[in-house]
Amino acid sequence: MALIECVPNYSEGRDKAIIEKIESHFKDKEGIKLLDTAPDEDHNRTVITVVGEPEPLVEAVIASAKTAHEEIDMTKHQGEHPRMGATDVIPLTPVKDISMEECVELSKDIAKRLGEDLDIPVFMYEESATRKDRKNLAKVRKGEYEGVKKRINEEGEEPDYGPAKMHETAGATAVGARKPLVAYNVNLSTSDVDIAKKIAKNIRQRSGGLKNVKALGIYLDDRQVAQVTMNLVDVNQTPIYRVQELIKIEAARYGVYITDCEIVGLTPVEALIDVARYYLQLDGFDSEQVLENRLID
Amino acid sequence: MALIECVPNYSEGRDKAIIEKIESHFKDKEGIKLLDTAPDEDHNRTVITVVGEPEPLVEAVIASAKTAHEEIDMTKHQGEHPRMGATDVIPLTPVKDISMEECVELSKDIAKRLGEDLDIPVFMYEESATRKDRKNLAKVRKGEYEGVKKRINEEGEEPDYGPAKMHETAGATAVGARKPLVAYNVNLSTSDVDIAKKIAKNIRQRSGGLKNVKALGIYLDDRQVAQVTMNLVDVNQTPIYRVQELIKIEAARYGVYITDCEIVGLTPVEALIDVARYYLQLDGFDSEQVLENRLID
Repeated sequence: MALIECVPNYSEGRDKAIIEKIESHFKDKEGIKLLDTAPDEDHNRTVITVVGEPEPLVEAVIASAKTAHEEIDMTKHQGEHPRMGATDVIPLTPVKDISMEECVELSKDIAKRLGEDLDIPVFMYEESATRKDRKNLAKVRKGEYEGVKKRINEEGEEPDYGPAKMHETAGATAVGARKPLVAYNVNLSTSDVDIAKKIAKNIRQRSGGLKNVKALGIYLDDRQVAQVTMNLVDVNQTPIYRVQELIKIEAARYGVYITDCEIVGLTPVEALIDVARYYLQLDGFDSEQVLENRLID
Repeated sequence: MALIECVPNYSEGRDKAIIEKIESHFKDKEGIKLLDTAPDEDHNRTVITVVGEPEPLVEAVIASAKTAHEEIDMTKHQGEHPRMGATDVIPLTPVKDISMEECVELSKDIAKRLGEDLDIPVFMYEESATRKDRKNLAKVRKGEYEGVKKRINEEGEEPDYGPAKMHETAGATAVGARKPLVAYNVNLSTSDVDIAKKIAKNIRQRSGGLKNVKALGIYLDDRQVAQVTMNLVDVNQTPIYRVQELIKIEAARYGVYITDCEIVGLTPVEALIDVARYYLQLDGFDSEQVLENRLID
Protein backbone atom coordinates (compact mmCIF):
# COMPACT_ATOMS: atom_id res chain seq x y z
CA MET A 1 0.00 0.00 0.00
CA ALA A 2 1.35 3.41 -1.00
CA LEU A 3 1.96 5.84 1.87
CA ILE A 4 2.94 9.50 1.77
CA GLU A 5 3.68 12.03 4.46
CA CYS A 6 2.28 15.52 4.23
CA VAL A 7 3.26 18.45 6.47
CA PRO A 8 0.95 21.33 5.53
CA ASN A 9 1.52 24.72 7.19
CA TYR A 10 -1.40 27.06 7.93
CA SER A 11 -1.16 30.75 8.81
CA GLU A 12 -3.02 30.51 12.11
CA GLY A 13 -1.32 29.57 15.37
CA ARG A 14 -3.44 31.36 17.97
CA ASP A 15 -7.17 30.80 17.42
CA LYS A 16 -7.86 27.32 18.78
CA ALA A 17 -11.29 27.05 17.17
CA ILE A 18 -9.85 27.63 13.70
CA ILE A 19 -6.93 25.27 14.32
CA GLU A 20 -9.34 22.54 15.42
CA LYS A 21 -11.50 23.06 12.33
CA ILE A 22 -8.44 22.63 10.10
CA GLU A 23 -7.21 19.65 12.10
CA SER A 24 -10.63 17.97 11.98
CA HIS A 25 -10.17 17.10 8.29
CA PHE A 26 -7.33 14.72 9.26
CA LYS A 27 -8.90 13.20 12.36
CA ASP A 28 -10.49 9.74 12.35
CA LYS A 29 -10.46 9.51 8.57
CA GLU A 30 -10.15 6.16 6.83
CA GLY A 31 -6.73 5.64 5.23
CA ILE A 32 -4.93 8.55 6.89
CA LYS A 33 -3.33 9.11 10.27
CA LEU A 34 -2.79 12.47 11.97
CA LEU A 35 0.60 12.29 13.70
CA ASP A 36 0.99 15.79 15.06
CA THR A 37 -0.58 19.23 15.23
CA ALA A 38 1.90 21.92 16.27
CA PRO A 39 0.51 25.46 16.61
CA ASP A 40 3.03 28.23 17.30
CA GLU A 41 1.77 31.51 18.73
CA ASP A 42 4.85 33.60 17.90
CA HIS A 43 4.90 32.33 14.34
CA ASN A 44 1.09 32.48 14.23
CA ARG A 45 1.30 29.28 12.26
CA THR A 46 0.26 25.63 12.66
CA VAL A 47 2.19 22.71 11.24
CA ILE A 48 0.26 19.47 10.78
CA THR A 49 1.97 16.13 10.18
CA VAL A 50 -0.16 13.47 8.56
CA VAL A 51 0.58 10.14 6.86
CA GLY A 52 -1.76 8.23 4.62
CA GLU A 53 -2.78 6.71 1.35
CA PRO A 54 -2.60 9.13 -1.57
CA GLU A 55 -6.27 9.50 -2.44
CA PRO A 56 -7.80 10.14 1.01
CA LEU A 57 -4.78 12.24 1.97
CA VAL A 58 -5.22 14.51 -1.05
CA GLU A 59 -8.93 14.90 -0.26
CA ALA A 60 -8.21 15.81 3.36
CA VAL A 61 -5.58 18.36 2.37
CA ILE A 62 -7.96 20.03 -0.12
CA ALA A 63 -10.72 20.13 2.50
CA SER A 64 -8.35 21.63 5.09
CA ALA A 65 -7.21 24.28 2.57
CA LYS A 66 -10.86 25.16 1.95
CA THR A 67 -11.36 25.70 5.70
CA ALA A 68 -8.17 27.80 5.93
CA HIS A 69 -9.42 29.80 2.94
CA GLU A 70 -12.72 30.50 4.72
CA GLU A 71 -11.30 31.22 8.18
CA ILE A 72 -7.98 33.02 7.69
CA ASP A 73 -7.58 36.58 6.44
CA MET A 74 -4.05 37.23 5.17
CA THR A 75 -4.62 40.99 5.06
CA LYS A 76 -4.70 40.89 8.87
CA HIS A 77 -2.12 38.15 9.49
CA GLN A 78 0.99 38.87 11.51
CA GLY A 79 3.64 36.44 12.72
CA GLU A 80 7.38 35.86 12.86
CA HIS A 81 7.53 33.10 10.28
CA PRO A 82 7.59 34.04 6.58
CA ARG A 83 4.19 33.33 4.97
CA MET A 84 2.25 34.11 1.82
CA GLY A 85 -1.05 32.22 2.19
CA ALA A 86 -3.72 30.90 4.53
CA THR A 87 -2.53 27.44 3.57
CA ASP A 88 1.05 28.51 3.18
CA VAL A 89 2.86 25.40 2.01
CA ILE A 90 1.94 21.77 1.28
CA PRO A 91 4.96 19.47 1.07
CA LEU A 92 4.49 15.80 0.14
CA THR A 93 7.09 13.12 0.90
CA PRO A 94 7.08 9.50 -0.28
CA VAL A 95 7.13 7.04 2.66
CA LYS A 96 6.43 3.58 1.24
CA ASP A 97 5.60 1.94 -2.09
CA ILE A 98 5.39 5.23 -3.97
CA SER A 99 7.93 7.07 -6.10
CA MET A 100 8.96 10.70 -6.03
CA GLU A 101 7.49 11.04 -9.54
CA GLU A 102 4.09 9.88 -8.30
CA CYS A 103 4.27 12.37 -5.44
CA VAL A 104 5.02 15.12 -7.96
CA GLU A 105 1.90 14.10 -9.89
CA LEU A 106 -0.17 14.22 -6.70
CA SER A 107 1.21 17.67 -5.88
CA LYS A 108 0.04 18.84 -9.32
CA ASP A 109 -3.45 17.43 -8.67
CA ILE A 110 -3.62 19.37 -5.41
CA ALA A 111 -2.31 22.57 -7.01
CA LYS A 112 -4.77 22.36 -9.90
CA ARG A 113 -7.74 21.97 -7.57
CA LEU A 114 -6.64 24.77 -5.25
CA GLY A 115 -6.38 27.00 -8.29
CA GLU A 116 -9.63 26.02 -9.96
CA ASP A 117 -11.91 25.43 -6.97
CA LEU A 118 -10.61 28.05 -4.53
CA ASP A 119 -9.14 30.71 -6.86
CA ILE A 120 -5.78 30.49 -5.13
CA PRO A 121 -2.56 31.07 -7.10
CA VAL A 122 -0.26 28.08 -6.55
CA PHE A 123 3.52 27.83 -6.99
CA MET A 124 5.16 24.42 -7.42
CA TYR A 125 8.46 24.01 -5.50
CA GLU A 126 11.19 21.47 -4.69
CA GLU A 127 10.88 18.31 -6.81
CA SER A 128 7.64 19.66 -8.31
CA ALA A 129 9.20 22.93 -9.44
CA THR A 130 8.63 23.76 -13.10
CA ARG A 131 11.58 26.16 -13.12
CA LYS A 132 14.95 25.91 -11.43
CA ASP A 133 14.51 29.23 -9.62
CA ARG A 134 11.33 27.92 -7.95
CA LYS A 135 12.91 24.83 -6.36
CA ASN A 136 13.75 26.80 -3.22
CA LEU A 137 10.69 27.73 -1.17
CA ALA A 138 12.41 30.80 0.30
CA LYS A 139 12.82 32.25 -3.20
CA VAL A 140 9.21 31.49 -4.15
CA ARG A 141 7.95 33.15 -0.98
CA LYS A 142 10.38 36.11 -1.08
CA GLY A 143 8.67 39.29 0.13
CA GLU A 144 5.95 37.16 1.71
CA TYR A 145 2.22 37.79 1.17
CA GLU A 146 2.75 41.49 0.56
CA GLY A 147 5.65 41.05 -1.86
CA VAL A 148 4.13 38.21 -3.86
CA LYS A 149 0.88 40.17 -4.12
CA LYS A 150 2.71 43.06 -5.77
CA ARG A 151 4.62 41.09 -8.40
CA ILE A 152 2.37 38.11 -9.17
CA ASN A 153 0.87 39.63 -12.33
CA GLU A 154 4.27 40.59 -13.75
CA GLU A 155 5.78 38.61 -16.59
CA GLY A 156 7.69 35.55 -15.32
CA GLU A 157 6.09 35.87 -11.89
CA GLU A 158 2.83 34.04 -12.72
CA PRO A 159 1.90 31.07 -10.56
CA ASP A 160 1.95 27.50 -11.97
CA TYR A 161 -1.76 27.02 -11.27
CA GLY A 162 -4.71 29.30 -10.54
CA PRO A 163 -5.13 32.99 -11.33
CA ALA A 164 -2.17 35.37 -11.79
CA LYS A 165 -3.67 37.48 -9.04
CA MET A 166 -3.25 37.18 -5.29
CA HIS A 167 -6.34 35.91 -3.48
CA GLU A 168 -7.07 38.85 -1.19
CA THR A 169 -7.71 36.85 2.01
CA ALA A 170 -6.28 33.40 1.25
CA GLY A 171 -3.09 34.60 -0.45
CA ALA A 172 -1.00 32.09 -2.41
CA THR A 173 0.12 28.53 -1.67
CA ALA A 174 3.30 26.59 -2.44
CA VAL A 175 2.88 22.86 -3.18
CA GLY A 176 5.69 20.43 -3.78
CA ALA A 177 7.05 16.92 -3.42
CA ARG A 178 10.29 16.64 -1.51
CA LYS A 179 12.59 14.12 0.07
CA PRO A 180 12.32 13.50 3.81
CA LEU A 181 14.13 16.19 5.75
CA VAL A 182 15.86 15.57 9.08
CA ALA A 183 16.28 18.54 11.40
CA TYR A 184 19.53 17.83 13.26
CA ASN A 185 21.24 19.88 15.97
CA VAL A 186 24.71 19.37 17.38
CA ASN A 187 25.69 21.03 20.65
CA LEU A 188 29.34 21.89 21.27
CA SER A 189 31.54 22.02 24.35
CA THR A 190 31.88 25.77 23.99
CA SER A 191 29.82 28.90 24.37
CA ASP A 192 31.74 30.57 21.52
CA VAL A 193 29.20 30.97 18.73
CA ASP A 194 31.97 31.89 16.27
CA ILE A 195 33.26 28.32 16.46
CA ALA A 196 29.79 26.97 15.69
CA LYS A 197 29.58 29.37 12.76
CA LYS A 198 32.96 28.28 11.39
CA ILE A 199 32.05 24.60 11.70
CA ALA A 200 28.67 25.22 10.03
CA LYS A 201 30.41 26.97 7.17
CA ASN A 202 32.89 24.14 6.67
CA ILE A 203 30.41 21.29 6.66
CA ARG A 204 27.53 22.74 4.61
CA GLN A 205 27.05 22.37 0.85
CA ARG A 206 26.82 26.10 0.13
CA SER A 207 30.36 26.83 1.26
CA GLY A 208 32.21 23.69 0.19
CA GLY A 209 31.09 21.04 2.63
CA LEU A 210 28.76 18.08 2.34
CA LYS A 211 26.01 17.99 -0.23
CA ASN A 212 22.44 18.10 1.10
CA VAL A 213 23.48 19.83 4.32
CA LYS A 214 22.18 23.25 5.31
CA ALA A 215 23.83 24.53 8.49
CA LEU A 216 24.01 27.57 10.75
CA GLY A 217 26.00 28.31 13.88
CA ILE A 218 23.82 29.72 16.67
CA TYR A 219 23.99 30.45 20.40
CA LEU A 220 21.52 28.82 22.78
CA ASP A 221 20.64 31.37 25.43
CA ASP A 222 19.07 28.96 27.90
CA ARG A 223 21.94 26.46 27.86
CA GLN A 224 24.70 28.99 27.09
CA VAL A 225 26.25 26.75 24.49
CA ALA A 226 27.03 27.07 20.78
CA GLN A 227 25.10 24.87 18.40
CA VAL A 228 25.38 23.79 14.79
CA THR A 229 21.75 23.65 13.65
CA MET A 230 21.08 21.79 10.41
CA ASN A 231 18.57 20.64 7.87
CA LEU A 232 19.67 17.41 6.21
CA VAL A 233 17.66 17.43 3.02
CA ASP A 234 18.63 14.02 1.63
CA VAL A 235 19.72 11.55 4.32
CA ASN A 236 19.76 8.71 1.81
CA GLN A 237 22.51 10.38 -0.17
CA THR A 238 24.22 12.13 2.75
CA PRO A 239 23.58 10.10 5.93
CA ILE A 240 23.69 11.54 9.43
CA TYR A 241 26.84 9.64 10.49
CA ARG A 242 28.86 11.41 7.78
CA VAL A 243 27.73 14.80 9.05
CA GLN A 244 28.44 13.79 12.66
CA GLU A 245 31.97 12.55 11.91
CA LEU A 246 32.81 15.61 9.81
CA ILE A 247 31.66 17.93 12.60
CA LYS A 248 33.92 16.03 15.02
CA ILE A 249 36.85 16.54 12.65
CA GLU A 250 36.16 20.24 12.18
CA ALA A 251 35.54 20.76 15.91
CA ALA A 252 38.83 19.10 16.85
CA ARG A 253 40.88 21.98 15.43
CA TYR A 254 39.35 24.26 18.08
CA GLY A 255 39.76 21.71 20.87
CA VAL A 256 35.99 21.44 20.91
CA TYR A 257 33.91 18.27 21.00
CA ILE A 258 30.26 17.32 20.62
CA THR A 259 28.42 17.17 23.94
CA ASP A 260 25.02 16.01 22.69
CA CYS A 261 22.75 16.10 19.66
CA GLU A 262 19.07 16.07 18.83
CA ILE A 263 16.79 15.10 16.00
CA VAL A 264 13.87 17.53 15.96
CA GLY A 265 10.53 15.96 15.08
CA LEU A 266 10.25 12.85 12.96
CA THR A 267 12.87 10.88 11.08
CA PRO A 268 12.42 8.04 8.61
CA VAL A 269 13.76 4.79 10.10
CA GLU A 270 16.09 4.42 7.11
CA ALA A 271 18.13 7.37 8.40
CA LEU A 272 18.83 5.48 11.64
CA ILE A 273 19.48 2.20 9.83
CA ASP A 274 22.24 3.95 7.88
CA VAL A 275 23.78 5.07 11.17
CA ALA A 276 23.78 1.48 12.46
CA ARG A 277 25.12 0.19 9.13
CA TYR A 278 28.11 2.50 9.45
CA TYR A 279 29.04 2.19 13.11
CA LEU A 280 28.28 -1.53 13.39
CA GLN A 281 29.92 -2.20 10.01
CA LEU A 282 26.76 -3.89 8.72
CA ASP A 283 27.30 -3.37 5.03
CA GLY A 284 24.94 -6.16 4.00
CA PHE A 285 22.08 -5.18 6.31
CA ASP A 286 18.70 -5.03 4.56
CA SER A 287 15.97 -2.70 5.84
CA GLU A 288 13.56 -5.61 5.58
CA GLN A 289 15.42 -7.17 8.51
CA VAL A 290 13.81 -4.56 10.73
CA LEU A 291 10.77 -6.28 12.19
CA GLU A 292 8.67 -3.10 12.33
CA ASN A 293 9.31 -2.38 8.65
CA ARG A 294 7.48 -5.63 7.88
CA LEU A 295 4.40 -4.63 9.81
CA ILE A 296 3.39 -1.57 7.81
CA ASP A 297 0.84 -2.35 5.09
CA MET B 1 -3.34 -2.87 19.01
CA ALA B 2 -1.32 -5.62 20.71
CA LEU B 3 1.21 -7.41 18.51
CA ILE B 4 3.35 -10.43 19.26
CA GLU B 5 5.98 -12.26 17.26
CA CYS B 6 6.00 -16.05 17.21
CA VAL B 7 8.79 -18.21 15.76
CA PRO B 8 7.56 -21.82 15.94
CA ASN B 9 9.96 -24.61 14.90
CA TYR B 10 8.64 -27.81 13.28
CA SER B 11 10.58 -31.06 12.83
CA GLU B 12 10.19 -31.26 9.08
CA GLY B 13 12.54 -29.52 6.66
CA ARG B 14 12.39 -31.74 3.57
CA ASP B 15 8.83 -32.68 2.61
CA LYS B 16 7.48 -29.62 0.83
CA ALA B 17 3.86 -30.77 0.96
CA ILE B 18 3.95 -31.04 4.75
CA ILE B 19 5.78 -27.71 5.13
CA GLU B 20 3.15 -26.01 2.98
CA LYS B 21 0.33 -27.52 5.03
CA ILE B 22 1.89 -26.16 8.22
CA GLU B 23 2.59 -22.79 6.63
CA SER B 24 -0.97 -22.52 5.29
CA HIS B 25 -2.32 -21.83 8.78
CA PHE B 26 -0.45 -18.51 8.80
CA LYS B 27 -1.14 -17.43 5.23
CA ASP B 28 -3.79 -14.84 4.36
CA LYS B 29 -5.31 -14.91 7.83
CA GLU B 30 -6.97 -11.84 9.30
CA GLY B 31 -4.88 -10.20 12.03
CA ILE B 32 -1.65 -12.11 11.43
CA LYS B 33 1.22 -11.75 8.98
CA LEU B 34 3.58 -14.51 7.88
CA LEU B 35 7.03 -12.95 7.60
CA ASP B 36 9.21 -15.94 6.77
CA THR B 37 9.23 -19.70 6.27
CA ALA B 38 12.73 -21.15 6.49
CA PRO B 39 13.01 -24.92 5.90
CA ASP B 40 16.44 -26.50 6.46
CA GLU B 41 17.16 -29.90 4.92
CA ASP B 42 20.20 -30.75 7.04
CA HIS B 43 18.41 -29.82 10.22
CA ASN B 44 15.19 -31.38 8.86
CA ARG B 45 13.42 -28.49 10.51
CA THR B 46 11.34 -25.50 9.45
CA VAL B 47 11.33 -22.17 11.27
CA ILE B 48 8.32 -19.94 10.71
CA THR B 49 8.27 -16.26 11.66
CA VAL B 50 4.86 -14.72 12.13
CA VAL B 51 3.59 -11.52 13.72
CA GLY B 52 0.04 -10.78 14.72
CA GLU B 53 -2.65 -10.01 17.21
CA PRO B 54 -2.73 -12.41 20.16
CA GLU B 55 -6.02 -14.19 19.56
CA PRO B 56 -5.73 -15.08 15.84
CA LEU B 57 -2.03 -15.84 16.29
CA VAL B 58 -2.72 -18.33 19.09
CA GLU B 59 -5.41 -20.01 16.96
CA ALA B 60 -3.05 -20.30 13.97
CA VAL B 61 -0.26 -21.74 16.11
CA ILE B 62 -2.61 -24.36 17.60
CA ALA B 63 -3.90 -25.27 14.13
CA SER B 64 -0.34 -25.60 12.78
CA ALA B 65 0.65 -27.79 15.72
CA LYS B 66 -2.34 -30.02 14.97
CA THR B 67 -1.11 -30.41 11.37
CA ALA B 68 2.45 -31.14 12.55
CA HIS B 69 0.97 -33.69 14.98
CA GLU B 70 -0.85 -35.44 12.12
CA GLU B 71 1.94 -35.33 9.55
CA ILE B 72 5.23 -35.77 11.42
CA ASP B 73 6.40 -39.03 12.99
CA MET B 74 9.14 -38.41 15.56
CA THR B 75 10.02 -42.11 15.75
CA LYS B 76 11.41 -41.75 12.21
CA HIS B 77 12.79 -38.19 12.43
CA GLN B 78 16.47 -37.55 11.81
CA GLY B 79 18.25 -34.21 11.52
CA GLU B 80 21.25 -32.29 12.82
CA HIS B 81 19.35 -29.85 15.03
CA PRO B 82 18.33 -31.01 18.52
CA ARG B 83 14.57 -31.74 18.65
CA MET B 84 12.01 -33.43 20.86
CA GLY B 85 8.66 -32.89 19.09
CA ALA B 86 6.81 -32.47 15.80
CA THR B 87 6.16 -28.90 16.88
CA ASP B 88 9.43 -28.58 18.70
CA VAL B 89 9.33 -25.14 20.23
CA ILE B 90 6.93 -22.19 20.27
CA PRO B 91 8.53 -18.93 21.45
CA LEU B 92 6.41 -15.80 21.84
CA THR B 93 7.88 -12.29 21.94
CA PRO B 94 6.08 -9.03 22.74
CA VAL B 95 6.33 -6.52 19.86
CA LYS B 96 3.91 -3.70 20.62
CA ASP B 97 1.31 -2.74 23.23
CA ILE B 98 1.65 -6.01 25.14
CA SER B 99 3.64 -6.94 28.22
CA MET B 100 5.90 -9.90 28.83
CA GLU B 101 3.43 -11.05 31.52
CA GLU B 102 0.62 -11.13 28.98
CA CYS B 103 2.79 -13.16 26.61
CA VAL B 104 3.48 -15.60 29.44
CA GLU B 105 -0.29 -15.98 29.93
CA LEU B 106 -0.76 -16.62 26.21
CA SER B 107 2.01 -19.24 26.25
CA LYS B 108 0.14 -21.01 29.06
CA ASP B 109 -3.07 -20.97 27.00
CA ILE B 110 -1.25 -22.56 24.08
CA ALA B 111 0.44 -25.16 26.31
CA LYS B 112 -2.82 -26.09 27.99
CA ARG B 113 -4.59 -26.67 24.67
CA LEU B 114 -1.71 -28.67 23.18
CA GLY B 115 -1.83 -30.89 26.25
CA GLU B 116 -5.60 -31.28 26.46
CA ASP B 117 -6.59 -31.38 22.79
CA LEU B 118 -3.57 -33.12 21.26
CA ASP B 119 -2.23 -35.20 24.16
CA ILE B 120 1.18 -33.60 23.86
CA PRO B 121 3.36 -33.10 26.95
CA VAL B 122 4.41 -29.44 27.10
CA PHE B 123 7.32 -27.83 28.94
CA MET B 124 7.28 -24.12 29.72
CA TYR B 125 10.65 -22.36 29.19
CA GLU B 126 12.32 -18.92 29.30
CA GLU B 127 10.05 -16.28 30.90
CA SER B 128 7.24 -18.86 31.12
CA ALA B 129 9.35 -21.41 33.02
CA THR B 130 7.77 -22.68 36.22
CA ARG B 131 11.15 -23.80 37.54
CA LYS B 132 14.55 -22.19 37.30
CA ASP B 133 16.12 -25.27 35.70
CA ARG B 134 13.60 -25.09 32.86
CA LYS B 135 14.37 -21.55 31.77
CA ASN B 136 17.03 -22.79 29.35
CA LEU B 137 15.58 -24.63 26.35
CA ALA B 138 18.75 -26.72 25.89
CA LYS B 139 18.29 -28.16 29.37
CA VAL B 140 14.60 -28.89 28.83
CA ARG B 141 15.37 -30.68 25.55
CA LYS B 142 18.49 -32.50 26.81
CA GLY B 143 18.72 -35.99 25.27
CA GLU B 144 16.22 -34.88 22.60
CA TYR B 145 13.10 -36.89 21.71
CA GLU B 146 14.67 -40.17 22.78
CA GLY B 147 16.05 -38.89 26.08
CA VAL B 148 12.94 -36.97 27.10
CA LYS B 149 10.80 -40.04 26.25
CA LYS B 150 12.80 -42.14 28.71
CA ARG B 151 12.66 -39.81 31.69
CA ILE B 152 9.37 -37.95 31.30
CA ASN B 153 7.44 -40.17 33.74
CA GLU B 154 10.11 -39.93 36.43
CA GLU B 155 9.58 -37.74 39.48
CA GLY B 156 10.50 -34.12 38.81
CA GLU B 157 10.58 -34.72 35.06
CA GLU B 158 6.85 -34.31 34.43
CA PRO B 159 5.79 -31.72 31.86
CA ASP B 160 3.97 -28.51 32.89
CA TYR B 161 0.91 -29.40 30.80
CA GLY B 162 -0.43 -32.55 29.14
CA PRO B 163 0.26 -36.19 30.01
CA ALA B 164 3.48 -37.32 31.75
CA LYS B 165 4.06 -39.62 28.82
CA MET B 166 5.74 -38.89 25.50
CA HIS B 167 3.38 -38.69 22.55
CA GLU B 168 4.74 -41.53 20.39
CA THR B 169 4.68 -39.68 17.04
CA ALA B 170 4.33 -35.99 18.01
CA GLY B 171 6.82 -36.06 20.90
CA ALA B 172 6.89 -33.11 23.32
CA THR B 173 6.77 -29.34 22.81
CA ALA B 174 8.43 -26.41 24.56
CA VAL B 175 6.40 -23.20 24.81
CA GLY B 176 7.64 -19.93 26.26
CA ALA B 177 7.59 -16.17 26.18
CA ARG B 178 10.97 -14.54 25.66
CA LYS B 179 12.59 -11.23 24.91
CA PRO B 180 13.59 -10.47 21.32
CA LEU B 181 16.88 -12.12 20.44
CA VAL B 182 19.39 -10.61 18.02
CA ALA B 183 21.79 -13.00 16.28
CA TYR B 184 24.95 -10.97 15.78
CA ASN B 185 28.21 -12.01 14.11
CA VAL B 186 31.49 -10.10 14.11
CA ASN B 187 34.22 -11.01 11.59
CA LEU B 188 37.84 -10.37 12.51
CA SER B 189 40.92 -9.38 10.53
CA THR B 190 42.50 -12.76 11.29
CA SER B 191 42.11 -16.41 10.41
CA ASP B 192 43.25 -17.44 13.89
CA VAL B 193 40.17 -18.98 15.51
CA ASP B 194 41.90 -18.99 18.91
CA ILE B 195 41.74 -15.20 18.95
CA ALA B 196 37.99 -15.32 18.22
CA LYS B 197 37.59 -17.85 21.03
CA LYS B 198 39.50 -15.70 23.49
CA ILE B 199 37.47 -12.61 22.57
CA ALA B 200 34.21 -14.58 22.85
CA LYS B 201 35.24 -15.79 26.29
CA ASN B 202 36.06 -12.27 27.49
CA ILE B 203 32.89 -10.59 26.31
CA ARG B 204 30.22 -13.16 27.19
CA GLN B 205 28.22 -13.31 30.42
CA ARG B 206 29.16 -16.88 31.30
CA SER B 207 32.85 -16.13 31.68
CA GLY B 208 32.83 -12.63 33.13
CA GLY B 209 31.81 -10.40 30.23
CA LEU B 210 28.61 -8.58 29.37
CA LYS B 211 25.27 -9.74 30.68
CA ASN B 212 22.81 -11.09 28.08
CA VAL B 213 25.59 -12.03 25.66
CA LYS B 214 26.17 -15.60 24.51
CA ALA B 215 29.28 -15.90 22.34
CA LEU B 216 31.47 -18.47 20.59
CA GLY B 217 34.62 -18.15 18.52
CA ILE B 218 34.39 -20.04 15.24
CA TYR B 219 36.26 -20.36 11.93
CA LEU B 220 34.47 -19.59 8.67
CA ASP B 221 35.72 -22.09 6.09
CA ASP B 222 34.45 -20.26 3.03
CA ARG B 223 35.89 -16.87 3.97
CA GLN B 224 38.86 -18.22 5.95
CA VAL B 225 38.31 -15.76 8.78
CA ALA B 226 37.68 -16.07 12.48
CA GLN B 227 34.29 -14.94 13.76
CA VAL B 228 32.72 -14.12 17.10
CA THR B 229 29.18 -15.49 16.72
CA MET B 230 26.65 -14.27 19.29
CA ASN B 231 23.14 -14.36 20.57
CA LEU B 232 22.20 -11.10 22.27
CA VAL B 233 19.28 -12.14 24.42
CA ASP B 234 18.27 -8.73 25.80
CA VAL B 235 19.28 -5.82 23.57
CA ASN B 236 17.25 -3.40 25.66
CA GLN B 237 19.45 -4.06 28.67
CA THR B 238 22.68 -4.76 26.79
CA PRO B 239 22.59 -2.89 23.46
CA ILE B 240 24.59 -3.91 20.39
CA TYR B 241 26.92 -0.89 20.49
CA ARG B 242 28.26 -1.95 23.90
CA VAL B 243 29.08 -5.41 22.57
CA GLN B 244 30.69 -3.93 19.44
CA GLU B 245 32.89 -1.52 21.39
CA LEU B 246 33.94 -4.17 23.90
CA ILE B 247 34.94 -6.53 21.08
CA LYS B 248 37.05 -3.71 19.58
CA ILE B 249 38.79 -3.27 22.92
CA GLU B 250 39.45 -6.98 23.37
CA ALA B 251 40.56 -7.40 19.74
CA ALA B 252 43.08 -4.55 20.02
CA ARG B 253 45.35 -6.54 22.35
CA TYR B 254 45.95 -9.00 19.48
CA GLY B 255 46.40 -6.30 16.85
CA VAL B 256 43.13 -7.47 15.37
CA TYR B 257 40.20 -5.33 14.23
CA ILE B 258 36.62 -5.84 13.09
CA THR B 259 36.29 -6.15 9.31
CA ASP B 260 32.51 -6.48 9.07
CA CYS B 261 29.47 -7.64 10.98
CA GLU B 262 26.03 -9.08 10.35
CA ILE B 263 22.66 -9.28 11.99
CA VAL B 264 21.11 -12.62 11.09
CA GLY B 265 17.37 -12.50 10.47
CA LEU B 266 15.14 -9.92 12.07
CA THR B 267 15.86 -7.26 14.66
CA PRO B 268 13.46 -5.00 16.53
CA VAL B 269 13.92 -1.40 15.42
CA GLU B 270 14.59 -0.41 19.04
CA ALA B 271 17.93 -2.25 18.87
CA LEU B 272 19.05 0.02 16.01
CA ILE B 273 17.64 3.14 17.67
CA ASP B 274 19.88 2.41 20.67
CA VAL B 275 22.87 2.23 18.33
CA ALA B 276 22.00 5.64 16.84
CA ARG B 277 21.37 7.07 20.32
CA TYR B 278 24.89 6.10 21.36
CA TYR B 279 26.95 7.04 18.31
CA LEU B 280 24.99 10.20 17.47
CA GLN B 281 24.82 11.18 21.16
CA LEU B 282 21.04 11.43 21.00
CA ASP B 283 20.27 10.86 24.64
CA GLY B 284 16.83 12.44 24.44
CA PHE B 285 15.68 10.64 21.30
CA ASP B 286 12.23 9.10 21.63
CA SER B 287 11.29 6.00 19.59
CA GLU B 288 8.07 7.76 18.67
CA GLN B 289 10.17 10.14 16.56
CA VAL B 290 10.67 7.29 14.10
CA LEU B 291 8.01 7.84 11.46
CA GLU B 292 7.49 4.14 10.77
CA ASN B 293 6.89 3.42 14.46
CA ARG B 294 3.84 5.68 14.19
CA LEU B 295 2.36 3.75 11.30
CA ILE B 296 1.92 0.38 13.00
CA ASP B 297 -1.56 -0.05 14.48
